[in-house]
Amino acid sequence: MIKVGIVGGTGYTGVELLRLLSGHPEVKLAVITSRSEAGLPVADLFPNLRGHVDLVFSEPDVDVLAGCDVVFFATPHGVAMNMAAQLVKQSTRVIDLGADFRIRDAKLWEQWYGMAHTEPEMLSQAVYGLPEVNRTAIKSAQLIACPGCYPTAVQLGFLPLIEKGLIDTHHLIADAKSGVSGAGRKASVGALLGEVSESMKAYAVAGHRHLPEIVQGLSTVAGKDVGLTFVPHLTPMIRGIHATLYGKLKGSGSELQALYEERYADEPFVDVMPAGSHPETRSVKGVNTCRISIHIPQGGDTVVILSVIDNLVKGASGQAVQNMNLMFGFAETAGLDSIALMP
Amino acid sequence: MIKVGIVGGTGYTGVELLRLLSGHPEVKLAVITSRSEAGLPVADLFPNLRGHVDLVFSEPDVDVLAGCDVVFFATPHGVAMNMAAQLVKQSTRVIDLGADFRIRDAKLWEQWYGMAHTEPEMLSQAVYGLPEVNRTAIKSAQLIACPGCYPTAVQLGFLPLIEKGLIDTHHLIADAKSGVSGAGRKASVGALLGEVSESMKAYAVAGHRHLPEIVQGLSTVAGKDVGLTFVPHLTPMIRGIHATLYGKLKGSGSELQALYEERYADEPFVDVMPAGSHPETRSVKGVNTCRISIHIPQGGDTVVILSVIDNLVKGASGQAVQNMNLMFGFAETAGLDSIALMP
Amino acid sequence: MIKVGIVGGTGYTGVELLRLLSGHPEVKLAVITSRSEAGLPVADLFPNLRGHVDLVFSEPDVDVLAGCDVVFFATPHGVAMNMAAQLVKQSTRVIDLGADFRIRDAKLWEQWYGMAHTEPEMLSQAVYGLPEVNRTAIKSAQLIACPGCYPTAVQLGFLPLIEKGLIDTHHLIADAKSGVSGAGRKASVGALLGEVSESMKAYAVAGHRHLPEIVQGLSTVAGKDVGLTFVPHLTPMIRGIHATLYGKLKGSGSELQALYEERYADEPFVDVMPAGSHPETRSVKGVNTCRISIHIPQGGDTVVILSVIDNLVKGASGQAVQNMNLMFGFAETAGLDSIALMP
Amino acid sequence: MIKVGIVGGTGYTGVELLRLLSGHPEVKLAVITSRSEAGLPVADLFPNLRGHVDLVFSEPDVDVLAGCDVVFFATPHGVAMNMAAQLVKQSTRVIDLGADFRIRDAKLWEQWYGMAHTEPEMLSQAVYGLPEVNRTAIKSAQLIACPGCYPTAVQLGFLPLIEKGLIDTHHLIADAKSGVSGAGRKASVGALLGEVSESMKAYAVAGHRHLPEIVQGLSTVAGKDVGLTFVPHLTPMIRGIHATLYGKLKGSGSELQALYEERYADEPFVDVMPAGSHPETRSVKGVNTCRISIHIPQGGDTVVILSVIDNLVKGASGQAVQNMNLMFGFAETAGLDSIALMP
Repeated sequence: MIKVGIVGGTGYTGVELLRLLSGHPEVKLAVITSRSEAGLPVADLFPNLRGHVDLVFSEPDVDVLAGCDVVFFATPHGVAMNMAAQLVKQSTRVIDLGADFRIRDAKLWEQWYGMAHTEPEMLSQAVYGLPEVNRTAIKSAQLIACPGCYPTAVQLGFLPLIEKGLIDTHHLIADAKSGVSGAGRKASVGALLGEVSESMKAYAVAGHRHLPEIVQGLSTVAGKDVGLTFVPHLTPMIRGIHATLYGKLKGSGSELQALYEERYADEPFVDVMPAGSHPETRSVKGVNTCRISIHIPQGGDTVVILSVIDNLVKGASGQAVQNMNLMFGFAETAGLDSIALMP
Repeated sequence: MIKVGIVGGTGYTGVELLRLLSGHPEVKLAVITSRSEAGLPVADLFPNLRGHVDLVFSEPDVDVLAGCDVVFFATPHGVAMNMAAQLVKQSTRVIDLGADFRIRDAKLWEQWYGMAHTEPEMLSQAVYGLPEVNRTAIKSAQLIACPGCYPTAVQLGFLPLIEKGLIDTHHLIADAKSGVSGAGRKASVGALLGEVSESMKAYAVAGHRHLPEIVQGLSTVAGKDVGLTFVPHLTPMIRGIHATLYGKLKGSGSELQALYEERYADEPFVDVMPAGSHPETRSVKGVNTCRISIHIPQGGDTVVILSVIDNLVKGASGQAVQNMNLMFGFAETAGLDSIALMP
Repeated sequence: MIKVGIVGGTGYTGVELLRLLSGHPEVKLAVITSRSEAGLPVADLFPNLRGHVDLVFSEPDVDVLAGCDVVFFATPHGVAMNMAAQLVKQSTRVIDLGADFRIRDAKLWEQWYGMAHTEPEMLSQAVYGLPEVNRTAIKSAQLIACPGCYPTAVQLGFLPLIEKGLIDTHHLIADAKSGVSGAGRKASVGALLGEVSESMKAYAVAGHRHLPEIVQGLSTVAGKDVGLTFVPHLTPMIRGIHATLYGKLKGSGSELQALYEERYADEPFVDVMPAGSHPETRSVKGVNTCRISIHIPQGGDTVVILSVIDNLVKGASGQAVQNMNLMFGFAETAGLDSIALMP
Repeated sequence: MIKVGIVGGTGYTGVELLRLLSGHPEVKLAVITSRSEAGLPVADLFPNLRGHVDLVFSEPDVDVLAGCDVVFFATPHGVAMNMAAQLVKQSTRVIDLGADFRIRDAKLWEQWYGMAHTEPEMLSQAVYGLPEVNRTAIKSAQLIACPGCYPTAVQLGFLPLIEKGLIDTHHLIADAKSGVSGAGRKASVGALLGEVSESMKAYAVAGHRHLPEIVQGLSTVAGKDVGLTFVPHLTPMIRGIHATLYGKLKGSGSELQALYEERYADEPFVDVMPAGSHPETRSVKGVNTCRISIHIPQGGDTVVILSVIDNLVKGASGQAVQNMNLMFGFAETAGLDSIALMP
């Protein structure tokens, strides 16, 4: 059993972490912090946790957190970087679900996130927590930068094609649709049911913060800069991301189904669907799986990859737990083996 | 480990049984039948089960089913009664999630269900599977009639008041709101998203099949016939029942909170919320819990009970598993200890 | 053509007023105010108005507003009372969609709304704008207090029964279900899609501000104090209220269908459905109609009335326009004759 | 006033036609047919029409229909072609909302629709009813093939670029998201709320029937065959299509905003949004408008066009009425000037 702390437990990734960790056989939840809710029992804020979690929110305190084996940051960007260095110095491992350590280039980070990075020297130390790419490095990492939700769905979808050099990497297109929980649990007009239900819209077409993260990840794999057009859409549902990916094939594409099946054969959380399938986001609701299918419409030279995840699980808290499992030598699927709720 | 069979696995209670049973530590899923889908792998119909359930639908065959320790019927009314007798004779225990054995009076059953009852003599043998009322009888039962979804929410809400004789039982009112999954997974215009989304309506106000079942249950507890007005409503969501119950108090009602807490203190799946609470159906999404709160608005003589369940879990498949646990001496919460998905 | 002003046009009742008034044959929209959005074209905030409304939000200014024939207040309570007196003095008629003038007893108002009433002497002058009850008084009113959304659905449902003295008025029950737009268009966690979608809950069971308003209305009709238990519920949809009303009949109830049909025969916006019907809220989406049906389940002594409206139309902006039509001698249905969107 | 008939009024495009036509100043609804519902008052099936439409469904009868000036077919493919010839012969004009006359090549039609075309010689006579392309021809047409919903959104989005030859027409991509009403109002498991709510999926990636229609339309404009990858998605909402279009620019793209504004300056139902906008489908809910915005992310060579319509209005019944207006010399916006419901 390891002692686990969570910083910032009042958002959607926080409550999802609590749900996953409280059922984890190797974890003892020790601390959960929230400045705004200090003193409140967690189960008063999230009634689904009644009878399962008896923790009380406390003020964040680095010394207390340093008593944990690992601390998760389920916070907006700009929070984790202020405490991570102190924790890592005291040998507490850190898994940041926020964006602070995702971009290796501090200047680029500052440009997209609009604030100064206070720990630029830690960027090289952070491991990007996509196990399907960085499993070995994750195992020994002190600091994990958990991927964003869109980047997870998009990278897992494109990965085999780019690793094998099978598509034109100058003109990648990712058309992604996300449920509204991606906007977080904070007071806003833009995510009211009255505003987003019964409607569909694209947003941030000019540039979304997940764009440089995806480009960095795919460029690393490609060994050269890739060009990506990324258009996120807000979809009237709570959970789920459906990424529809388009690329121009260099060759025939006849082996793609086999390529994907082989690439992900040993991955516990990537499911390559049978040829001709259309994965639904509901098939991964509440679970850590990414389901992928591959299409080449009309046998042309455009490949279409469909990739679905639950943005709060494989796109955030579940992936964070998967990283923790790797870091501490637990079974990779520990605490993550439930079945999606359907319907 | 016991061997379990399921008859009728293509509906919503069927897939929910599969989800719950495939994570159950004492269960081996042996058979799942479907006339219409015989030969199809279950996970092809329900992609959430990919990687978890590798069964194939088969034609229903009593001899094969009789090789199981227990068989669940997740079928429309009229199916279970034709096979239950044969199974029970061969010492296979039967848990019917349908309505065939819920009403003890065969004539009354025939009147509400519009068909002949082929096994009226089994009605007295069947145990009504509401553990909070019939736990002892359930343990040794050969044949369980699982309560309907509305009856579960309504009875658990009214029970303490009626047991103690604290309300006028001639004028009970149950205003119940159900998600659309209660209508089942069958082709129909009435449950299309285009018909029921963004709308609210009552239905079957003149008389719903769950009315005689609730009246039978409450009358048994009251020791006399109760009078109930029951109005079900279709709510634009997938899962959940919210029952709002009204009764006229005979006395002051000042002890009701304590009464409910005491009545359900040892019940693993009934959660009496703090005074002043408003339970949300989402707080029980996917789990077997019934959450209840008690209100006496403006200190008057009308008591308002709020009772929420997931219609597919405590209202169907979860309760069926709870019954199975009792019948086979497993921990009552075995396979039923997950946390509701929220958001 | 009359000149119309709107104070507070950034909420849901504001945009709905704009939609209805911009298609009204007798109205010229002259002013729309918003402190927070002054200078912004209305159609930039509400893109559905592009090409239909070219007004710009302006700072509220009593002198400018006094140049209008009528001013609508689509504001939270506490705003209209500060400007209404000045406007009425200058012969501008006022229609308040908020709560400031709905309760005739200033002390009672202050108790429920938690603030001092600054114009208590105007309360007796205000006409409660429910045309089905106060049509004559409305025609000559200077100041209209538009009914709340729940009070409209509940009063129209109970009215014929209470006028005729056919039910026990000590134990009225109103179980009401509202779409989320009733919570308004303001930043809040409680109305996020992630919080309220796929869930159902009661709220304010201990006491909702619409309770004293309904009691006042029904008591006036009854000629004595009525007793009402009112339980509002939040429903996962944008628009619509479904009120399910329960009362104990004094007599047989055999004439109720005819009574309702007769009572509302000349009402352009109340539709008594055929016996046995179940009105759906979607059947009034976007229109000013209230649809009602009457049931006496199992021929007992409990009557069940189903009453549905669109909370933003008959429950707010449509009813306000209906009042305006009466005040200025227009056809009562002018600007209100469109058909509900379905599906 | 013209006499109008509708064949097949029980689906979603049928009820939407009724809504639009019953408010049309130049139209008298004379006949509405339905084999399955003959004898039923229309308002019994669609309660939103109560008080507005008093027609009764009748058996389809060509002689009766031939007494109309124009007959709309709101039927599945394969129905209109059997009656259109007879009607046109008797000088009744025909507007087919179905697919029978959309594809000029009978062989191609038969390949995609899987049945024989019984009136191939009428294909050349039919005018494709997209007014923004074919306004002149529509005015004198006897037979209109109304465009499909996806084809309307996609063609209006791509049109200016292709007319001016500004993009690579070999690699067009249309990623389209549709509400569930696009699947029609017929009993099916696939469109149940329990199946499609809270989920997102692509479908028919291998080939959707709207693909050849779009390709035909764009190729005609381009003067050569275009290559299109078309991926439709099912979105958990009732109405609306959001088409996200991708193309590779040949030149700089700096003039695109002006180009679109100019191209559609005189179009009453195409609204080019300001640069940087993200149109929402709800902004056109219930109205005949197509809203478009143009983006060139990061100033690259990929142009992204966002195009939204209401699939039942501009994508079906509204466009049909627009065609009728042109055919009979009415104002093009007659009966189509309402404002979208928002929220």
